[in-house]
Amino acid sequence: MPKRASEIHLVTVHLDAQSPTPMYCQLYDGIRAAILAGHFQAGARLPATRALAKEFNISRNTVVEAFQRLFAEGYLEGKIGSGTYVSKALPDDLLRARSVVETLGAEPRTPRVSTSPNGIGPSRALSQRGQITAAMRTSVSDDNVYQVRPFVTGLPALDAFPIDTWMRVSNRCWRYLSLRELGYADPAGYMPLRRAVAARLRETRAVQCDAEQVIIVSGTQQAINLCAQLLLNPGDAVWLEDPTYLGARAALSNSGARLVPVSVDQEGLVVSEGIALEPNARMAFVSPSYQVPMCVTMSLSRRLALLDWAARTGAWVIEDDYDSEFRYAGRPLASLQSLDTAKRVIYIGTFSKSLLPALRLGYLVAPPDLVDAFIAARAIADRHAHTLEQAIVADFIAEGHFAQHLRRMRTLYQERQQMLVSAAQRDLAGLLDVEGKDAGLNLVGWLPPGVNDKDVSQAIAEHNISAPAISAYALKPQKRGGLVLGYAALTAREIRKGIKDLAPILTKFVK
Amino acid sequence: MPKRASEIHLVTVHLDAQSPTPMYCQLYDGIRAAILAGHFQAGARLPATRALAKEFNISRNTVVEAFQRLFAEGYLEGKIGSGTYVSKALPDDLLRARSVVETLGAEPRTPRVSTSPNGIGPSRALSQRGQITAAMRTSVSDDNVYQVRPFVTGLPALDAFPIDTWMRVSNRCWRYLSLRELGYADPAGYMPLRRAVAARLRETRAVQCDAEQVIIVSGTQQAINLCAQLLLNPGDAVWLEDPTYLGARAALSNSGARLVPVSVDQEGLVVSEGIALEPNARMAFVSPSYQVPMCVTMSLSRRLALLDWAARTGAWVIEDDYDSEFRYAGRPLASLQSLDTAKRVIYIGTFSKSLLPALRLGYLVAPPDLVDAFIAARAIADRHAHTLEQAIVADFIAEGHFAQHLRRMRTLYQERQQMLVSAAQRDLAGLLDVEGKDAGLNLVGWLPPGVNDKDVSQAIAEHNISAPAISAYALKPQKRGGLVLGYAALTAREIRKGIKDLAPILTKFVK
Repeated sequence: MPKRASEIHLVTVHLDAQSPTPMYCQLYDGIRAAILAGHFQAGARLPATRALAKEFNISRNTVVEAFQRLFAEGYLEGKIGSGTYVSKALPDDLLRARSVVETLGAEPRTPRVSTSPNGIGPSRALSQRGQITAAMRTSVSDDNVYQVRPFVTGLPALDAFPIDTWMRVSNRCWRYLSLRELGYADPAGYMPLRRAVAARLRETRAVQCDAEQVIIVSGTQQAINLCAQLLLNPGDAVWLEDPTYLGARAALSNSGARLVPVSVDQEGLVVSEGIALEPNARMAFVSPSYQVPMCVTMSLSRRLALLDWAARTGAWVIEDDYDSEFRYAGRPLASLQSLDTAKRVIYIGTFSKSLLPALRLGYLVAPPDLVDAFIAARAIADRHAHTLEQAIVADFIAEGHFAQHLRRMRTLYQERQQMLVSAAQRDLAGLLDVEGKDAGLNLVGWLPPGVNDKDVSQAIAEHNISAPAISAYALKPQKRGGLVLGYAALTAREIRKGIKDLAPILTKFVK
Repeated sequence: MPKRASEIHLVTVHLDAQSPTPMYCQLYDGIRAAILAGHFQAGARLPATRALAKEFNISRNTVVEAFQRLFAEGYLEGKIGSGTYVSKALPDDLLRARSVVETLGAEPRTPRVSTSPNGIGPSRALSQRGQITAAMRTSVSDDNVYQVRPFVTGLPALDAFPIDTWMRVSNRCWRYLSLRELGYADPAGYMPLRRAVAARLRETRAVQCDAEQVIIVSGTQQAINLCAQLLLNPGDAVWLEDPTYLGARAALSNSGARLVPVSVDQEGLVVSEGIALEPNARMAFVSPSYQVPMCVTMSLSRRLALLDWAARTGAWVIEDDYDSEFRYAGRPLASLQSLDTAKRVIYIGTFSKSLLPALRLGYLVAPPDLVDAFIAARAIADRHAHTLEQAIVADFIAEGHFAQHLRRMRTLYQERQQMLVSAAQRDLAGLLDVEGKDAGLNLVGWLPPGVNDKDVSQAIAEHNISAPAISAYALKPQKRGGLVLGYAALTAREIRKGIKDLAPILTKFVK
């Protein structure tokens, strides 16, 4: 931390007391925009919160709230009260690069999209059948229809879903929805839901969009598949986080793309490795909020580096923001898309985690130039999503049930995660290293070095416990074996029992 | 009719009084099988119904019922009471060809499937945007949300949908369905629904299938798109009924296939023309029960000729059986798939017409060799269909609500069709030639020769009446212009008013 860094002045920040946007959001937006625009040097010191409160005539708490969010997202470092600085983790060149990016963004370019056909070839589809079965049938097993198997991944708390509220809203929709809504509908989705999603994404994820850019899809998988079919030509290189979600790998590989596995470390996708391996890749597929399956959050500097690369090369970035609703400390990080000034990011979200997988509803935010192409592709794929479900979800959001459910689930999942961590630390010490995280529905349990995670995962499966191996998601050999453990869908009892049951199995593999 | 054709003996037909299959069905099956196996000459005379009743010890009515069905499907001709003959419209060579087909069928062949990628290219998708909008947004208009616009095509009676029953079944499903069903599910579909569909298809459409071959899809469009992506390589020729459903054309063309438009006459697809144009096409797309948009039923001899070609060349036949539930005279014709001994037919059906388009549920019956490939392709496309909707439909069928709804709708649609025909004959004489049919949700109104149907359709649209031009569905110029008129979704008042409103507009085009 520089002792005597010049204090900066927030000359570009203007707050409007009449605006419906809360003051702390306005302050956050203003400071963030100034940092990204390169107005401040890395390490520059911000005025004290008290001074800012006085300057803007707002309460100090408002300033603290804005600062906390900027800390959480990596824009600021230091400590409130003893000195707050523009983060050094933002290299100057990245900050400067934004002006280049902005130039590109200002001059609209024709989207580089596929002109030759690509899609699902059955022989490839067949050869991937095993993987697909593993990835997409994880929660399906025939032995016990009443319970969820520990530690099934990516599943929300099915037992905590507010079925009564849902049915009430559903019955009302069926009764009062216009007859017309029972027929064929707009491939882009039900407009009230598109508006609700756009508003939520702007507010909670800082996504830059209006409702016209939001296309309702039947879940993340459809969104990824549409991206693959629309944006890739056979032979195109695609950066893929390695390890990654197998459904994405299947869709991208089926489009005829050449997969370029790029390592994931504690800061997320190693952008420099991607550039070294394949600087002219046409697409990067990432899950920056909480990487599947590594459970890390992409750092701000990596986000900026990724966007900078995409802006320079004209590559597409697919942001799979599948469970960003579940963050247990601080506010959710703003999305990658919110930082994208060159319109290279396709943002994908889903109701599978925030509501239920069985609903098959998600959304895609397309850059304006691509909206029509995505709508056409969706119409050709399967016309449109279930209209009533879309109406129910729209009402669910509008009436506050959605926000309330998320609040309840955040508390519940945090408790369940803590339960998992403490049970593992008690019963699996030396066998599986499980550390808590600030987000998500899953954690990774790391095996002692040298233990083969696929062997362990298979042995566990024979005891009716699901814990996929990290390396099962990867194309390249992984440094250390690990097991992915889902906890959100399990009761405390199921978590404790599952962990206890793991101990004797793991012991066999750890000498 | 030959005066003295040798009377045939039904030596291969055996009836079992203990079987749960009704006697008339057994008799129908036996005679049909014998004709298809080539046991009888075309023109051979069947014994009198009275004699058969005595021979099999069944009532004469039972024989008459079986005969009526065989007449309807083109296996028999003549007249009950005055002589019944094996149809001459079945050329001998086609009948004999069955043995070749059966040989091929007996020796399982590797399905000829695509090995190179194909799919949606956005530039093509974009260039087809206009068509897609026309095809897929027909029922979507912004001006009036409470009424269905006359004469929107392909839409069932939204106002007659049993919403109360649906909500009752829905609420029960939400309450009693296992928690596990709320998570991710099998891409092939919800097994109880697959079983229910298989049973119904065997019974009502003579489809040869078990539940394992039934894959639940999100409507006909998805089924067609999966077929296009899975079975076609770029450049492959595809026979397309011309005119045809635009969604099919978009999906097939987006897979990179070369479209070969084949004429449709009163007997359906002109198979000989297809063979002359492109004998080695890899696929034929047909809607034999009630052709879109020509409203004709494919004759038995054309069906056999098409299947014979497919068996000989190894081509795939996509049977879009989208509204076979709605037949107002006689029993539904058996499906094309039921005649297919070489396993070349992919059968597609939908709940969009029998229930509601908004549900987005349909089904595909794949030949056994292709089942795994279709399931994998579906998983990659969007994982699986909405689970609860599948469960509701399964219960709807199991509890008899579905059959009851179809019975009610058949009566209603027949009335609405008669209303349309009589209104048109009264108010549009000399302007639009509308003749009743035994099936469907639409009719064609033929314009006087020389009148451009696209011009008329456009003029009508300005008066908020939807009546797509026949030539809008076609690639080749059509002999005579026509308008497609949907009636199933309209009340008697709406039909009468719509027809009355058409008169002054049509008058302007007919001098």
